Amino acid sequence: MRQVTLHDVANAIGVSAQTVSRVINQRPDVADATRVRVWETIRQLGYKPNIMARGLVSRRSHVLGVITLTLNDYFRSEVMTGLEKDARARGYACHLSFAKEDADDLPELVDSMLARQVDAIALLMPKRFVYPEFHVDVPVVSIAHLLDHPRAINVDVDNIDGAYQAIRYLLDQGHRTIGHITGPMDWAPAADRVEGARRALAEEQVPLTLRNYVESKDWTLQSGYEAACQLLEQLPDLTAIFCHNDWMALGAYRALREMGRRIPTDVSVLGYDDLPICQFMEPPLSSVRQPGEGLGQLMAQLVITAIDHAEAYRQDMLVPAELMVRDSVIAPSLTV
Amino acid sequence: MRQVTLHDVANAIGVSAQTVSRVINQRPDVADATRVRVWETIRQLGYKPNIMARGLVSRRSHVLGVITLTLNDYFRSEVMTGLEKDARARGYACHLSFAKEDADDLPELVDSMLARQVDAIALLMPKRFVYPEFHVDVPVVSIAHLLDHPRAINVDVDNIDGAYQAIRYLLDQGHRTIGHITGPMDWAPAADRVEGARRALAEEQVPLTLRNYVESKDWTLQSGYEAACQLLEQLPDLTAIFCHNDWMALGAYRALREMGRRIPTDVSVLGYDDLPICQFMEPPLSSVRQPGEGLGQLMAQLVITAIDHAEAYRQDMLVPAELMVRDSVIAPSLTV
Repeated sequence: MRQVTLHDVANAIGVSAQTVSRVINQRPDVADATRVRVWETIRQLGYKPNIMARGLVSRRSHVLGVITLTLNDYFRSEVMTGLEKDARARGYACHLSFAKEDADDLPELVDSMLARQVDAIALLMPKRFVYPEFHVDVPVVSIAHLLDHPRAINVDVDNIDGAYQAIRYLLDQGHRTIGHITGPMDWAPAADRVEGARRALAEEQVPLTLRNYVESKDWTLQSGYEAACQLLEQLPDLTAIFCHNDWMALGAYRALREMGRRIPTDVSVLGYDDLPICQFMEPPLSSVRQPGEGLGQLMAQLVITAIDHAEAYRQDMLVPAELMVRDSVIAPSLTV
Repeated sequence: MRQVTLHDVANAIGVSAQTVSRVINQRPDVADATRVRVWETIRQLGYKPNIMARGLVSRRSHVLGVITLTLNDYFRSEVMTGLEKDARARGYACHLSFAKEDADDLPELVDSMLARQVDAIALLMPKRFVYPEFHVDVPVVSIAHLLDHPRAINVDVDNIDGAYQAIRYLLDQGHRTIGHITGPMDWAPAADRVEGARRALAEEQVPLTLRNYVESKDWTLQSGYEAACQLLEQLPDLTAIFCHNDWMALGAYRALREMGRRIPTDVSVLGYDDLPICQFMEPPLSSVRQPGEGLGQLMAQLVITAIDHAEAYRQDMLVPAELMVRDSVIAPSLTV
């Protein structure tokens, strides 16, 4: 029996071969009814499309290589969801590899992806790392890690402005003795958030001294708890705490509870990420919201556009963060 | 200039071509020092391996297709981490696609993966769905969704036993009026956990009536909160609540707090998943732990083994859950 071809499928339905090809490549520009009919006919006739073989001819694999830290993080998981969704709508599949946190396996992962002929690479590696030679001849989109490369596309949430908004809000409420629980400073988002805080504080001539902050060793609840204990010791008269993520803010809630300090009456608390749990904390936690899924979609859109345009140039792009006000911040009490 | 080949790389270092090939395919059976030297030499000589082209010859793509619900879930994200880690150690890359929750795009996703020549498919789709014809000629490993297919590999956490342990523990503490907040019953884990609860209750001749449980519409904090409010209304004399996940237990915490019912003095609460946050809740939440990363590793191991063995047969496998006891459950007070 002769092998079934793409043209057999097209003829059986009475559409063009190009339409069948679009469906197989999951392009969005096909009517839903047509799409369903094409897949049904592919199954009925037993046609076996081979995108890989066609990739060898077109020199396109229609695969995006994604290298990420583990997705056990709300924001990163949202970015990945948006990225895959947009990539698929553009006919691209995602190859996923998890890198070690210190990124020392990154060169191997990149080379291995290139060996698998990915058309572009996306990096979700917010921790700073040293990558001596990033000589890849495909477009690369990176979040949080600024690549210095003529074809690199760097996107991120505007963490400087996000932290600026947070601290500006605390200052406007009247707080002057603010404690900071920062993420590990070798993570780009932590460094950016410290910079944003510094800018807001400078407007009121409030210095950011060593006494004012504790750098946590990771982003966990436990680290937030320990950092808050240390912060309350070194800055006992603080009236507000800004935490670089909501998990650490939750750890700080426990530390404050144990010390008998009421939130927000005695101490205001402000988080970052706007996790769904914020509304369920007692009191509900004010937090800075990051548009994870939108950022992922932007990454896919930019990098796939770059594949199709050889003249692509370096792009740096920031999306805004937004302060979500709930009940964990009030003006400092005068009697404290 | 002549194109650099795999043999040039092998000759430059003095290893066999097979060793170079093993490194490129990320097989684990190569010494670390050799691995580093091979990649360095590949970069120095400018060799461009093409796993895709070799796949056409060997009829192996060394790609695993993973179809999953979004990874914004602790357990699923852990499974994915374990799966990718183990797949990579066996020389396999992971292709990732997110399916819609009702899985009505699953046939398309599967066909599209097959068109990309994946060697096997892994499904992380815990919601029950109707898939009329799963006629794929590659091995499929599925979590939570039992595939009835001669080459299917079904793995899962033993949710029946997990819930049995949870309810047995509540019964042993003396609870007899137990409320249940279940996940949506079209999700396999929810149905299994109800079955496990029923078995434990039957041992004490305690019936599981309609008054005793509320089925939440999803797995969120908000649903848990609403379900707890309803449960307290229809079963006001309950002394314990078993929640099908920790997020819903957290929602129940808020509902109980608002009603002035103390945990665990007035009402004991037991969750499922053992999220990191359990230890930070007030009081720390007892919960049933699921081995997510281990389960993901098992999935990769089983399905890749099946690729290499044409005589593979259907396998059903369960891994055990474990009750983690903290402070949210005590014996019911006699005065209630």
